[in-house]
Amino acid sequence: MPREITTSAVVKLTRNPIRDIVDNLKIEPPKDRRFLSLALGDPTVFGNLQPNDEIVAAVETALRSHAGDGYSPSAGYPEARAAIADFARVPSRPLAGDDVIITSGASHALYLTFKALVNPGDNVLLPAPGFPLYDTQISSLGGQAKFYPLDPARNWAADVAAMDALVDDRTVAILVCNPSNPCGSVFDRATLEGIIAVAERHGLPIIADEIYLDLVFDDNVFHPIASLSTTVPVIGIGGLAKKFLVPGWRIGWVLIWDDPAHRLAELRRGLMGLSALILGGNSLIQRAIPTILKVNDTFHRRTLDVLINNAHRSIEAFKTVPGITCIRPQGAMYLMLQIDVAQFRDIRDDRDFAEQLVAEEGVLVLPGQCFHCTGHFARIVFTAPAERLDEAYARIDAFCRRHQR
Amino acid sequence: MPREITTSAVVKLTRNPIRDIVDNLKIEPPKDRRFLSLALGDPTVFGNLQPNDEIVAAVETALRSHAGDGYSPSAGYPEARAAIADFARVPSRPLAGDDVIITSGASHALYLTFKALVNPGDNVLLPAPGFPLYDTQISSLGGQAKFYPLDPARNWAADVAAMDALVDDRTVAILVCNPSNPCGSVFDRATLEGIIAVAERHGLPIIADEIYLDLVFDDNVFHPIASLSTTVPVIGIGGLAKKFLVPGWRIGWVLIWDDPAHRLAELRRGLMGLSALILGGNSLIQRAIPTILKVNDTFHRRTLDVLINNAHRSIEAFKTVPGITCIRPQGAMYLMLQIDVAQFRDIRDDRDFAEQLVAEEGVLVLPGQCFHCTGHFARIVFTAPAERLDEAYARIDAFCRRHQR
Repeated sequence: MPREITTSAVVKLTRNPIRDIVDNLKIEPPKDRRFLSLALGDPTVFGNLQPNDEIVAAVETALRSHAGDGYSPSAGYPEARAAIADFARVPSRPLAGDDVIITSGASHALYLTFKALVNPGDNVLLPAPGFPLYDTQISSLGGQAKFYPLDPARNWAADVAAMDALVDDRTVAILVCNPSNPCGSVFDRATLEGIIAVAERHGLPIIADEIYLDLVFDDNVFHPIASLSTTVPVIGIGGLAKKFLVPGWRIGWVLIWDDPAHRLAELRRGLMGLSALILGGNSLIQRAIPTILKVNDTFHRRTLDVLINNAHRSIEAFKTVPGITCIRPQGAMYLMLQIDVAQFRDIRDDRDFAEQLVAEEGVLVLPGQCFHCTGHFARIVFTAPAERLDEAYARIDAFCRRHQR
Repeated sequence: MPREITTSAVVKLTRNPIRDIVDNLKIEPPKDRRFLSLALGDPTVFGNLQPNDEIVAAVETALRSHAGDGYSPSAGYPEARAAIADFARVPSRPLAGDDVIITSGASHALYLTFKALVNPGDNVLLPAPGFPLYDTQISSLGGQAKFYPLDPARNWAADVAAMDALVDDRTVAILVCNPSNPCGSVFDRATLEGIIAVAERHGLPIIADEIYLDLVFDDNVFHPIASLSTTVPVIGIGGLAKKFLVPGWRIGWVLIWDDPAHRLAELRRGLMGLSALILGGNSLIQRAIPTILKVNDTFHRRTLDVLINNAHRSIEAFKTVPGITCIRPQGAMYLMLQIDVAQFRDIRDDRDFAEQLVAEEGVLVLPGQCFHCTGHFARIVFTAPAERLDEAYARIDAFCRRHQR
């Protein structure tokens, strides 16, 4: 009699709330009109945002040279690591190639970091709303997420006092995502300094997910958190995905900004050891990294123009939609709609809003629930071409008017 | 006072014995002659084995089409999964795209598999000699490796009775690596049937690392182990690395051959869940997979010709080297030298052999110790161009004569 084949405890701990919600979301768009998804955080899906010829040519050169066919060292090629250090360096703090570990996408960079830091029972402070994969990864390690709130009334500024109160003796790090997925917000300098003060007071390292870095709009400014302190250890998370519009190329990185006492020395060795478990980012793209990171600024300007235009277009569009407040996006490629359910006849919550919207109008947005978000919000990815956004927003407007109390 | 920043237990469990040995190996080649490394299991390092124009063109097309810029589903694009199923299918057993999970290289495929199966205290049966990453990955999960011997006197056939005796109630799988790294051996059908009988008797799944698949020489035949049973669950590990000569492209896969009772159903779901933790192989290469897997057979013929010529060249070269027996390579890209230390004046063991050889002759081979190998062996990777192999072998010959008792 064959024995049962069971799976490990790790499998059971590995839950993906966003997947659970999305998989259970009733997504039945009407058949007679085109389906418009504003749900996917992938800037490449509509074809209007792409890596330019220079980036493509860099990979083509690497491909033809055969220099990226073989294994790279598990932390990445020295040239690529040095180029990333140059790219990510801040004036006030040293960062060298040795401080960089190249990974298979930023999600792998996050996972290595959590794996190196988190023992079962430990906790990490995470933003709510926030990217759900953080919690998924931490939970899979037997760790616990503790959520500090971002305040929608203050453009999603972190509630620093609440963050401070959450720290206990099993807290191992504070994660900051700036610019924010899903909020599309950018922390101002005072907020970041408040976070640094919390980290400093408790002796905790900051994990800085800055994958959206300088994708910021209008007069907002992106401050890499490592630039605002020379004493708090910062573990930076980055990658090519968003700024260079190639999430599928799976190149991420961990940046190690140690403190003067070298408290990250053990972590650095640990990350190096863990990186050997599956090896890192693919060699082909790694060979192109030094060129990609120096791509002509016109490329970035164009991306930003598209995002800024779409952000403004979105803000305008929602000004007159009943029951909806669009919280002004400041960066990244997201915005959050606040849904005033009291103004609707028959919308219970954010999830109900998303389900009815897709059923009636064929427009998909993700309910705030997917992002550990309390209150009733919905995330919109506004990377689509303008005419598509216009169409989606007109449908949302019609939907809200129809359901208005 | 800042608290100490420590690392997780996982970090402490993550040991890499091959790295530990290699890092501590005294590698001080003489300065006055060129260094010849026969140590690295990367067929691309010498430039004589490369993906051909067809493979390069497939990636170029994917690159220019921009179809591989975005995120793929975490188990891979359906077209790529279907192409891999077509490529790996055996006549006697169904395999569909849904049975394939694309990963960031075969090492990631192995790691997902162990992670889905192994709880702390569980064990997996591994070949000795064998690829050291298996043990590293299993140990990092708190699991334990139990080694079944491969017999050098029988061309490294598995000792099936010893394997059978190792199974206990914490054994969760039997891993088979065929063709073998580091032995360069190919299991015959009887050996494989013996292994299947052990798995069947104990109700265990087989993890089949068949990354070298049909890279076999002379009259040896590669039997995918899934083709020899319809009842034993087989988890296949493969990838583009070796047969397609692109280890740096980081495309591996897990193949799920379930049994009629669907005992792998939970594992399949578990693997899918785990694959979402870091997402899988890069999209760019994934888009090229359907073309790459159908590359003209001339390409494979050429690779095999190089390997077979080099295998024969190696066998010939070692016939007359004192104190050394070259165990005839049957497949993959490796051979093992057996070192009869009694025939040497001053060579203590395999490690001593490797250290003295590199110091005196500038030729690097890896001692069997790196591969959980008892007795005194050294692994040679024979992918180098013939003239380089000749030079290395002449130096090994001189070295052995000089140290002969």
